[in-house]
Amino acid sequence: MRVSELAERSGVPVATIKYYLREGLLPAGAATSATQATYDEAHVERLRLIRVLREIGGVPVAAVGAVLAAVDDPTQPLPDVIALAHHALGPPPPDEPSAEHVAARAEVAAFVAGRGWQVEDEAPSIDALAAALVALRGVTGPCGAEVFTPYADAVDGLADFELAWIDETRGVGHTIGQIVVGTVVYEQALVALRRLAEEHYSGERFGRRRRPPSRRRTPRPAP
Amino acid sequence: MRVSELAERSGVPVATIKYYLREGLLPAGAATSATQATYDEAHVERLRLIRVLREIGGVPVAAVGAVLAAVDDPTQPLPDVIALAHHALGPPPPDEPSAEHVAARAEVAAFVAGRGWQVEDEAPSIDALAAALVALRGVTGPCGAEVFTPYADAVDGLADFELAWIDETRGVGHTIGQIVVGTVVYEQALVALRRLAEEHYSGERFGRRRRPPSRRRTPRPAP
Repeated sequence: MRVSELAERSGVPVATIKYYLREGLLPAGAATSATQATYDEAHVERLRLIRVLREIGGVPVAAVGAVLAAVDDPTQPLPDVIALAHHALGPPPPDEPSAEHVAARAEVAAFVAGRGWQVEDEAPSIDALAAALVALRGVTGPCGAEVFTPYADAVDGLADFELAWIDETRGVGHTIGQIVVGTVVYEQALVALRRLAEEHYSGERFGRRRRPPSRRRTPRPAP
Repeated sequence: MRVSELAERSGVPVATIKYYLREGLLPAGAATSATQATYDEAHVERLRLIRVLREIGGVPVAAVGAVLAAVDDPTQPLPDVIALAHHALGPPPPDEPSAEHVAARAEVAAFVAGRGWQVEDEAPSIDALAAALVALRGVTGPCGAEVFTPYADAVDGLADFELAWIDETRGVGHTIGQIVVGTVVYEQALVALRRLAEEHYSGERFGRRRRPPSRRRTPRPAP
């Protein structure tokens, strides 16, 4: 297909496709003349993956390159690719962690290990959880990592569900792409659903918003 | 207390406190001389709230001002403050939604209503969920909003848990501050826990990371 069709199929504008080609995020098409090239399904799939990382995950272009390099390396073990995607998605661990953060990090790591979850010692999500614990303590006073138990219970079955959804018959690159997309897209879905649930239940408890429902204009009967 | 103690108590550097004072995010202290002022517990609490919004929520300074103005207005209904916090936390809804997005948005809104959740028609989280659905379809092919059911089930009990944790005896401003903090902090915790669960379960399914465990140096016995 030509670049115009590639743009239409992937939802990525031609100018952005050319930028990704220059940056090496997208492999060059097969040249059909000095100024034209043709692209295939692999290009469509790659562009959709880049789009998810950029638009849904908010991943910077440079970090997209690192994730794609891992996706393209068939010798890279899947858990390494997932760890890399988590690093790219941020937030970055603090450069100079405070004493409070270091203490909270140790408690959070013990909490995670206590659930039987085996994760890297340096997983950035442990730092994110420690930062959340420090912030909670600042606002509500002393509390332990066990405040996160209902949240850990809530996510415990989701990873299994997502991994079951993976189609491994289409090759390692495709599988890895699916996992990275799942990480980014289902994370956005989870956050959005939680906010909607919060809006609903806070409305139940504290009353609905006062703003009157927007009036739909009734179409006038034809004369 | 003096500004130096305020900095220590809140974990916010003096220069940043002065910036927040200039921007009107933090009310002025009581003047004790031409160049000095004294601050109280309300200042500590306010700074912690700003810190959570900025550092954990990644909320821009301008949007922090809008959230604080809502927190400070005792006539503002709580659900309105929560809706404002959700807008401030982003992502912003698309300026010019595609036809795909518009269709996905209608499906997602029907899915949310089908669960009995009552939310604003224009809730930005409905757009975020629609964007996730469009992205999923681009990668996995046709699917409906019901793919989000396990995620909606997972968060259904969490909002109740968080609202139960609210201490309403300390005044409306405090309650609203707690809800906003809960939104931001527990959201970060939820995302972090989901990534940790994903790392663990993908390790169970696809094998652990190959990197050898870091060797701890055994301290040499004292000579």
